[in-house]
Amino acid sequence: MEIDIATIGGYEEVGRQMTAVRAGDDIVVFDMGLNLSKVLIHDNVETERMHSLDLIDMGAIPDDRVMSDLDGEVQAIVPTHGHLDHIGAISKLAHRYDAPVVATPFTIELIKQQIESEEKFGVGNDLVKMDPGESMEIGNGLDLEFVNVTHSIIDAINPVLHTPEGSIIYGLDKRMDHTPVIGDPIDMDRFAEIAREGEGVLCYIEDCTNAGRKGRTPSEQHARNHVKDVLYSMEDYDGGIVATTFSSQIARVTSLVEFAKDIGRQPVLLGRSMEKYSGTAERLDFVDFPDDLGMFGHRQSVDRTFKRIMNDGKENFLPIVTGHQGEPRAMLTRMGRGETPYQLDEGDKVIFSARVIPEPTNEGQRYQSEQLLGMQGARIYDDVHVSGHLSQEGHYEMLQTLQPHHVVPAHNDLEHLARYIDLAEDQGYELGRDIHASRNGNVISLVE
Amino acid sequence: MEIDIATIGGYEEVGRQMTAVRAGDDIVVFDMGLNLSKVLIHDNVETERMHSLDLIDMGAIPDDRVMSDLDGEVQAIVPTHGHLDHIGAISKLAHRYDAPVVATPFTIELIKQQIESEEKFGVGNDLVKMDPGESMEIGNGLDLEFVNVTHSIIDAINPVLHTPEGSIIYGLDKRMDHTPVIGDPIDMDRFAEIAREGEGVLCYIEDCTNAGRKGRTPSEQHARNHVKDVLYSMEDYDGGIVATTFSSQIARVTSLVEFAKDIGRQPVLLGRSMEKYSGTAERLDFVDFPDDLGMFGHRQSVDRTFKRIMNDGKENFLPIVTGHQGEPRAMLTRMGRGETPYQLDEGDKVIFSARVIPEPTNEGQRYQSEQLLGMQGARIYDDVHVSGHLSQEGHYEMLQTLQPHHVVPAHNDLEHLARYIDLAEDQGYELGRDIHASRNGNVISLVE
Amino acid sequence: MEIDIATIGGYEEVGRQMTAVRAGDDIVVFDMGLNLSKVLIHDNVETERMHSLDLIDMGAIPDDRVMSDLDGEVQAIVPTHGHLDHIGAISKLAHRYDAPVVATPFTIELIKQQIESEEKFGVGNDLVKMDPGESMEIGNGLDLEFVNVTHSIIDAINPVLHTPEGSIIYGLDKRMDHTPVIGDPIDMDRFAEIAREGEGVLCYIEDCTNAGRKGRTPSEQHARNHVKDVLYSMEDYDGGIVATTFSSQIARVTSLVEFAKDIGRQPVLLGRSMEKYSGTAERLDFVDFPDDLGMFGHRQSVDRTFKRIMNDGKENFLPIVTGHQGEPRAMLTRMGRGETPYQLDEGDKVIFSARVIPEPTNEGQRYQSEQLLGMQGARIYDDVHVSGHLSQEGHYEMLQTLQPHHVVPAHNDLEHLARYIDLAEDQGYELGRDIHASRNGNVISLVE
Amino acid sequence: MEIDIATIGGYEEVGRQMTAVRAGDDIVVFDMGLNLSKVLIHDNVETERMHSLDLIDMGAIPDDRVMSDLDGEVQAIVPTHGHLDHIGAISKLAHRYDAPVVATPFTIELIKQQIESEEKFGVGNDLVKMDPGESMEIGNGLDLEFVNVTHSIIDAINPVLHTPEGSIIYGLDKRMDHTPVIGDPIDMDRFAEIAREGEGVLCYIEDCTNAGRKGRTPSEQHARNHVKDVLYSMEDYDGGIVATTFSSQIARVTSLVEFAKDIGRQPVLLGRSMEKYSGTAERLDFVDFPDDLGMFGHRQSVDRTFKRIMNDGKENFLPIVTGHQGEPRAMLTRMGRGETPYQLDEGDKVIFSARVIPEPTNEGQRYQSEQLLGMQGARIYDDVHVSGHLSQEGHYEMLQTLQPHHVVPAHNDLEHLARYIDLAEDQGYELGRDIHASRNGNVISLVE
Repeated sequence: MEIDIATIGGYEEVGRQMTAVRAGDDIVVFDMGLNLSKVLIHDNVETERMHSLDLIDMGAIPDDRVMSDLDGEVQAIVPTHGHLDHIGAISKLAHRYDAPVVATPFTIELIKQQIESEEKFGVGNDLVKMDPGESMEIGNGLDLEFVNVTHSIIDAINPVLHTPEGSIIYGLDKRMDHTPVIGDPIDMDRFAEIAREGEGVLCYIEDCTNAGRKGRTPSEQHARNHVKDVLYSMEDYDGGIVATTFSSQIARVTSLVEFAKDIGRQPVLLGRSMEKYSGTAERLDFVDFPDDLGMFGHRQSVDRTFKRIMNDGKENFLPIVTGHQGEPRAMLTRMGRGETPYQLDEGDKVIFSARVIPEPTNEGQRYQSEQLLGMQGARIYDDVHVSGHLSQEGHYEMLQTLQPHHVVPAHNDLEHLARYIDLAEDQGYELGRDIHASRNGNVISLVE
Repeated sequence: MEIDIATIGGYEEVGRQMTAVRAGDDIVVFDMGLNLSKVLIHDNVETERMHSLDLIDMGAIPDDRVMSDLDGEVQAIVPTHGHLDHIGAISKLAHRYDAPVVATPFTIELIKQQIESEEKFGVGNDLVKMDPGESMEIGNGLDLEFVNVTHSIIDAINPVLHTPEGSIIYGLDKRMDHTPVIGDPIDMDRFAEIAREGEGVLCYIEDCTNAGRKGRTPSEQHARNHVKDVLYSMEDYDGGIVATTFSSQIARVTSLVEFAKDIGRQPVLLGRSMEKYSGTAERLDFVDFPDDLGMFGHRQSVDRTFKRIMNDGKENFLPIVTGHQGEPRAMLTRMGRGETPYQLDEGDKVIFSARVIPEPTNEGQRYQSEQLLGMQGARIYDDVHVSGHLSQEGHYEMLQTLQPHHVVPAHNDLEHLARYIDLAEDQGYELGRDIHASRNGNVISLVE
Repeated sequence: MEIDIATIGGYEEVGRQMTAVRAGDDIVVFDMGLNLSKVLIHDNVETERMHSLDLIDMGAIPDDRVMSDLDGEVQAIVPTHGHLDHIGAISKLAHRYDAPVVATPFTIELIKQQIESEEKFGVGNDLVKMDPGESMEIGNGLDLEFVNVTHSIIDAINPVLHTPEGSIIYGLDKRMDHTPVIGDPIDMDRFAEIAREGEGVLCYIEDCTNAGRKGRTPSEQHARNHVKDVLYSMEDYDGGIVATTFSSQIARVTSLVEFAKDIGRQPVLLGRSMEKYSGTAERLDFVDFPDDLGMFGHRQSVDRTFKRIMNDGKENFLPIVTGHQGEPRAMLTRMGRGETPYQLDEGDKVIFSARVIPEPTNEGQRYQSEQLLGMQGARIYDDVHVSGHLSQEGHYEMLQTLQPHHVVPAHNDLEHLARYIDLAEDQGYELGRDIHASRNGNVISLVE
Repeated sequence: MEIDIATIGGYEEVGRQMTAVRAGDDIVVFDMGLNLSKVLIHDNVETERMHSLDLIDMGAIPDDRVMSDLDGEVQAIVPTHGHLDHIGAISKLAHRYDAPVVATPFTIELIKQQIESEEKFGVGNDLVKMDPGESMEIGNGLDLEFVNVTHSIIDAINPVLHTPEGSIIYGLDKRMDHTPVIGDPIDMDRFAEIAREGEGVLCYIEDCTNAGRKGRTPSEQHARNHVKDVLYSMEDYDGGIVATTFSSQIARVTSLVEFAKDIGRQPVLLGRSMEKYSGTAERLDFVDFPDDLGMFGHRQSVDRTFKRIMNDGKENFLPIVTGHQGEPRAMLTRMGRGETPYQLDEGDKVIFSARVIPEPTNEGQRYQSEQLLGMQGARIYDDVHVSGHLSQEGHYEMLQTLQPHHVVPAHNDLEHLARYIDLAEDQGYELGRDIHASRNGNVISLVE
């Protein structure tokens, strides 16, 4: 059976991930993501109303025109998890394919919401839920399996396409977490089994984000311990405490919520995306928040909540808000500018349970945000965080476990791919032979 | 009563800490440390045989000639903990003063060992043990109290000299640890009481090492969790695992020992200073190591142990060795060079439970060490560590708690003092009025 | 005669420089600057209409309320050169003092323009021109002398106040340039003479910006050679070339203009501040630009010029524009956004004859600007620049030459002052004795 | 005609460069270099006595075993210039090939010296000189041409192999210098001609060292101006001045020598490699040093010279010495340690006309060297330097000029290759199609 890998997006950047695998006459598409930074660099762009081709020209969504070079039928579109760089282009591209979107329940729910807010295209693809650990037949004799993995968002999986030539593992994005705070540990046993089944692993497509970082990315449990250490140290403080984190990082939000309770404060989630992700996670029973946990997204209800907090005494609350990257219009930045009813006083604590994504734009904005907060008297606790991506030793272990015949590094620019390739070459792979440094729009023929 | 603070050493560098406080006719000396880097930059220097004046000229030990400007009698020499930069000059300087050395039991034991290896001077000062939480009368109506603090070595205290003009707190070195792995949490309650007693806190002398770091230094518990996360992730590995950390960091050594056991490996401590610190801690009952824990310092017994490990199967052991900074002659570096019977194989793990002390010399040596280990096939896990020093929010809390009348930043060069001063000025202090940027050899008159 | 130094602004930041010297009953004020970053962090602030007290509260202009502690009459306000951080608060503060503003002709001209655009206050102080090398009597037996120095703007001086107790040299801002491109070299001979006259130098107030940089800041000639090297290398390019630099850096603008001519291109200055500074310099005969050199500031005339350039062929022009820091509304950033009639094509060259001022806000904006330009196909040449401030060896030489009795580092935060103090201590000065680490609002009594 | 490129060494590191081109039955080898850092990481290694295979195992010299895969006869070994990473393995590998070494005169002379000091192998290959601009016939209908380029060593060329399929340009190492201080400018006209001749440029092999640096590497003239600026600024200093630079950088040495004269000092070259390179350059008439310029390499004559300098007054001399990277045994480091008769005094100047090669080992050693010099009172001027390698805009221009059908980035690790590939892709090349990211030991078939 002929096997091709089309590396469509995310092979020259982080964002707009998209990869297609053709096995015989059948094609499975993994991820359809958005590169938000390519949108934000322009003023006043509203993606909801934009046409795909314009977004492709901007480099914001994958250029899927290479799909026509693949001789087969798309049988499924399979996003790995609910981050925008993996699902954000579905509303712009999926309708071109007569195929269902297959994903885990949480991811499907986020896709549904995205499709609903799309204003340009009608996206009518079936949305099919499949749980981690399950499989389905795809096309002509192929099997699609979801192996449970651990990432900075819940319900993340690595899809595996079982073909007669061996399995193809689409390994974006994960860390090797044996004690995630929510959900099951990464299913390394299953990966090991797959490596031993049939022809073994024909191809492993991997996320290189942290391939330059030494050691092992710690468990979310480590971030949770850090959150606990920080919040417990504030137990006696009788003023305001505010926290921010990635809205989609439900495990982190949970830790913040629980330890807020422990130190006698009422947590409350504020900001549009805070409400969206946590609300969705709760509705789908991924998390059991306290009954009295408020979540507010609309400007008016947020302001009303802030007023209530100020009235009741802010020493009784812990607002968990958007703005971890210093985004100019996010809640925390607005608090720094004094644009909300919440008043920061000398000595109030602000916890950034996030790392600045290392790019000068973010660094500048985050700096501005911290300056503004500091001018109000706030004390800053930053970097209460662990990454969601494998570091070198996680990559090493994955290769040891899977022993893939081919490796395709993905999810970054060539410099980051290079770091992964270095690592793989140390284990006997060879660039151009069984490691493939691919580019957007390229097709790798594995079996001809 | 006249009160002077003589800032003798460690006000222009890290290392050779020494501060004297005169209250009326009585003087108490805090710390007598060694700046090891000033020794190591020269080839073939053996401090044991050197005269004080030569060491002073090299900048290696405090220039205590300023002591003659202080009009009083030295009543006690009080080291705060057992690190070399706090006790390392006792064997060179203490004999000049007719006064006992007063310290906690672990610190006293380390001083005793140092005095025994001194070859130039006979140091006959009384060595007096006092436990954290205890006090003694000193001189004429003064009280010396040891407040329990938490640092990267056990049995650390902050000495407080109670005078009729208020208390003087010598605050070097600590972090605010509520869950240290060994010993009691920092005694913040006692600090708060002292602030409210009598005239309050006349002067607070503080360690600036991390005054430029945002947030809060996490607890040793956080490092312990990290060690656990790393070691547990290696549970299935059936080759060699080696760890290194600061020898004096007994809590960390304990964590390494315990989690080694958990994953079915026999820990063993190797290297002269590993044996010294852990042996001393065990003899003084600070720690209850497993009965079968080996500790070996002499070259011959280390080599014998390595041979036994290789014979019995290195998959059954976890050597904990010296060399965390890549020191050219330390055990781990020698292992990297293939100079020991322990043979590293492809895939073996090396854990640096330490941070490189950020200075180009260390960075160069550590890099070389990692290169050598990597050439043998070792996989590197670095930075499994938390600092022992207060960061900005710890400093903030100490000032909030103590409300000292005067603050004297110490334990670094002026650039680091500057960061502390910035922080203190944000809280209403003012340089030159109640914050003092002092230099080695300077005397500050607080009460005239 | 009593001598006080009031360190009013710029002792905790770069920007809002202001220092007052009282000698007996007479006071001379040096600089009245603006800290623009404190304005820009807020949205929509227009300083022209703001009241002084609001600007003081924002930290944008010096808090001159400490002036009332000085027992004497202000005889002159003496800005050293025309940069905003030295003259930008004159329109807000000078009217409070019944004293003339004394400065060099170019500086006076810039002040005049500033006062004209001020909308809140009427500033009626006399504006008195004095050339470098000249002196005037001030107050009661004092002499004010202007020593010629070299900086990144023309007509810069170091004012010297000659008092019976020795001279006071206000040393902001300069580099030691023996081959400036415009004007005379720094007058080191005069500095050496002053050091030998009368009581010598009582006090030297110095700019610390680069006190952490090793070596010597090269001459503007070095930047000129660099500009030449870059432009000559583009001689054969037949597309667009655009350059940007600090508008007030007339020497650099001159180099760009001349070498543009050499490679057969018509230079043209575009952007409000480009027109302002270069126009002023030309009107005052500091520079003799080619007759056909266009300078356009208003949006309409800029756009008309761009259209003409596009019509005539951009290969015949070299626009020199604003936007070297990536300021969002500056000309170059607008060109990157495609908002001007000038169209960048693949391969066009953009020369940043400037360094990013190292602060995350600037770094973020500059990054964005380069991204936008790159998206249009532009090739970036950055860092074609030398600093205008003394590095360590320049500071060393100044101290060797002047042998001042007292040194007051200025023009930055404490961390930068610390670097200068380190340097001065290496030469025998001592913090707290004859080096003074002062803060905004402090008064140093040198002679009582 | 079949064309293969074997990328033998320097495709995974800097050092041990070696590339072979097969055209039909004929093979030309470009460079045979040494990776010195792989030698120095081991203690006590003397390469002169070592066997090739051991050096290959250490990664110190190219693993040329891949040569047996090439079906043809080696007709010439062609080093591009005299740096060790290009010629340092000739004495270990060349004797295996029955072919002459063809290089420019200066390069040949250095190779001759190397072969003479080789103790393990007898190297009997013919050494053939060919000047820049000349050509010779090679093998069966091929032509080897030397195009003059500019690099940080004199007499550097880019060899061009003219084949019926187009020319193959081996582009290591150069910068685009139109005003080199010694020798002719880079011959861009000839490159342009070659691009237009016959089939054009079939393949361009390029050095990626600075592919991550924006802009253009300035001319050596720029470094010369900088040296002048620095030395002239010291004209009035009446103590010691010492300079260090790369010994093989004859142009820089010349500038130091000339400007030393200008400020009334007698230059003198000290250190083994200083004597070697400058002596060779003078003997071959590349440079016309003053008659009285001393050059001393042997320890005894160096010490005698230092004594004479101290006797005659060090204010009359400018020693130009080895040690620019802080190498522990180089002359300058020994001066810092006080191991030579030259005594540094407070205020003496040390000029590093070199950049630290950015690797932690060098950075640590250089730091130590500066510390030691500083302890003697020396003032440090560093980074008086320009690179010898093309930056991004030089690479851009080369591609514009040559329009090669294939590009092979070389001379660094994959991360650096990646930066070059990014740059080339921006110009329309595509990785895997016409840009080849190759590895040591790989063969690229260009024409089959």
